[in-house]
Amino acid sequence: MTVALYLPLEDKTQWWVDMLAEMLPGWTVKALDAVTDPAEVEYAVVWRPRTGDIAKFPNLKAVVSIGAGIDHVLADSELPEGVPIIRTVGDDLTQRMREYVALHVLRHHRDMPRQLQAQAEKDWHAIVVPVAPNRTVGVMGLGNLGAAAAQTLSALGFNTRGWSKSPKDIAGVETFAGPEGMDAFLDGCEILVNLLPLTEQTTGILNAELFGKLAEGACLINCARGPHLVDADLLEALESGQIKQATLDVFHIEPLPAEHQFWDHPAITVTPHVASQIDAVTGGRIIAANLKTFEETGTCADLADAKRGY
Amino acid sequence: MTVALYLPLEDKTQWWVDMLAEMLPGWTVKALDAVTDPAEVEYAVVWRPRTGDIAKFPNLKAVVSIGAGIDHVLADSELPEGVPIIRTVGDDLTQRMREYVALHVLRHHRDMPRQLQAQAEKDWHAIVVPVAPNRTVGVMGLGNLGAAAAQTLSALGFNTRGWSKSPKDIAGVETFAGPEGMDAFLDGCEILVNLLPLTEQTTGILNAELFGKLAEGACLINCARGPHLVDADLLEALESGQIKQATLDVFHIEPLPAEHQFWDHPAITVTPHVASQIDAVTGGRIIAANLKTFEETGTCADLADAKRGY
Repeated sequence: MTVALYLPLEDKTQWWVDMLAEMLPGWTVKALDAVTDPAEVEYAVVWRPRTGDIAKFPNLKAVVSIGAGIDHVLADSELPEGVPIIRTVGDDLTQRMREYVALHVLRHHRDMPRQLQAQAEKDWHAIVVPVAPNRTVGVMGLGNLGAAAAQTLSALGFNTRGWSKSPKDIAGVETFAGPEGMDAFLDGCEILVNLLPLTEQTTGILNAELFGKLAEGACLINCARGPHLVDADLLEALESGQIKQATLDVFHIEPLPAEHQFWDHPAITVTPHVASQIDAVTGGRIIAANLKTFEETGTCADLADAKRGY
Repeated sequence: MTVALYLPLEDKTQWWVDMLAEMLPGWTVKALDAVTDPAEVEYAVVWRPRTGDIAKFPNLKAVVSIGAGIDHVLADSELPEGVPIIRTVGDDLTQRMREYVALHVLRHHRDMPRQLQAQAEKDWHAIVVPVAPNRTVGVMGLGNLGAAAAQTLSALGFNTRGWSKSPKDIAGVETFAGPEGMDAFLDGCEILVNLLPLTEQTTGILNAELFGKLAEGACLINCARGPHLVDADLLEALESGQIKQATLDVFHIEPLPAEHQFWDHPAITVTPHVASQIDAVTGGRIIAANLKTFEETGTCADLADAKRGY
């Protein structure tokens, strides 16, 4: 079996090639740009492939996305129709997302930004907030990551809601589904966590209209994809006070350009797409295991649905 | 029944007197300093009483501590021996402590202080940390608050240890007890949470010797009492790097004096004794319910043990 690997970071490519080769004894792993005979490539392992990168392999059995989302693969307009796409998820990724969501929901819940400001002013003044059961938080997207995040928030004591495209049942979480469930989901929601997949329908979903349906002074946490958010609408909602604070892990352009207003906005916390960032070795292990399973069985648990978009 | 109430904050005393009077129909509630006939007082509800405040009531049935700790009551050298002391705990207090501990353990775990610094520098650089199951956190003190905090950390995925004076059994938590269990508890501990009661034995327990037994670069969270910590030893351990960061909610003198070095130490987060701060109305409700129960039955679940010190 031959694997072609592509990462936009050239300096990391060889390191990844060597790692996967070690984890896949008997397989051949090559940098995608070093492939001389495209017919020999059966698997492409990619992060943000360039247009046409995948179409050049006539005998491809599957594409592996280095990440939980497959939007960066589907963005390739020349992607061959029907090629199976394998996501990279796993306990580690889910665990890290749970940690990120719990941390940032608690930060906003207990108003840590204002607390740190108070410390800077040596201000011994108690910021008393509601107790978590009196705080309504909502998670949009109830896939592996969203469902785990919602359950974690519920276990922490928050009044937790979840919204997804199709109905889901999660213990301790009040769930809503479809466009018809959206308004009820948003109504009174004080902290909103976005974990939707990026599809045509969800692009720009975090916009002025949605913000207006949340509780006044709500907080937003986006740890899915940058294009879910209409940046200008967030800036306006922060200006008006409709949104009080936001934590953003993902952006339209990554790395977030130095001149972007988000970097030094006092009400925005920027993290560099690390919510569920796993170390490369853990990612490599998950990918190698998925490739072996797919090669043996013709399928694997992390197979995505290209038509659905995730 | 007559209740005498004392708070060091004069401006809040009348508000508390009125609130408790409303919650205890048929009872008389007075500010302690407004009592003219000490013989009529059967209950004293106090926060940081002055020496002799309680001894002046010959017919006292019980003292109520406005708070989970009773150290501030026992600090009164003239406290009559054997007078029952009722603590103020309750689900709300436990819930708030869980939130505080989860928030600050996660903040240190994911290195939010460095992340915020990176944002200030517009530095798009991933800070990759171990996943929670590979992070060892320890909770000292496994009473109501400590046990709940340890269970919460375990549920978040952390490798969680607990230490207490006498052996405790908590699902998902590796427990250690007594002086003979302390070294094993501290060994390899990367984030230490103190929730011990303040007693003679625990005063100054957070000192250089203890810090030296933690993992190098460990983080400290003190949300119990200020005198647990030897301030100078913490400053030294931060200087040497043995302790990387600390979050302190409690201090030897509160409010923390403006000139104290903790306020603007770059590696210390100061919060103003709010870890489990409940709103006064919730506190009043718990106190009123405990007083009624004690009056009817001669005891209540929140009775403390003065000899033990908590």
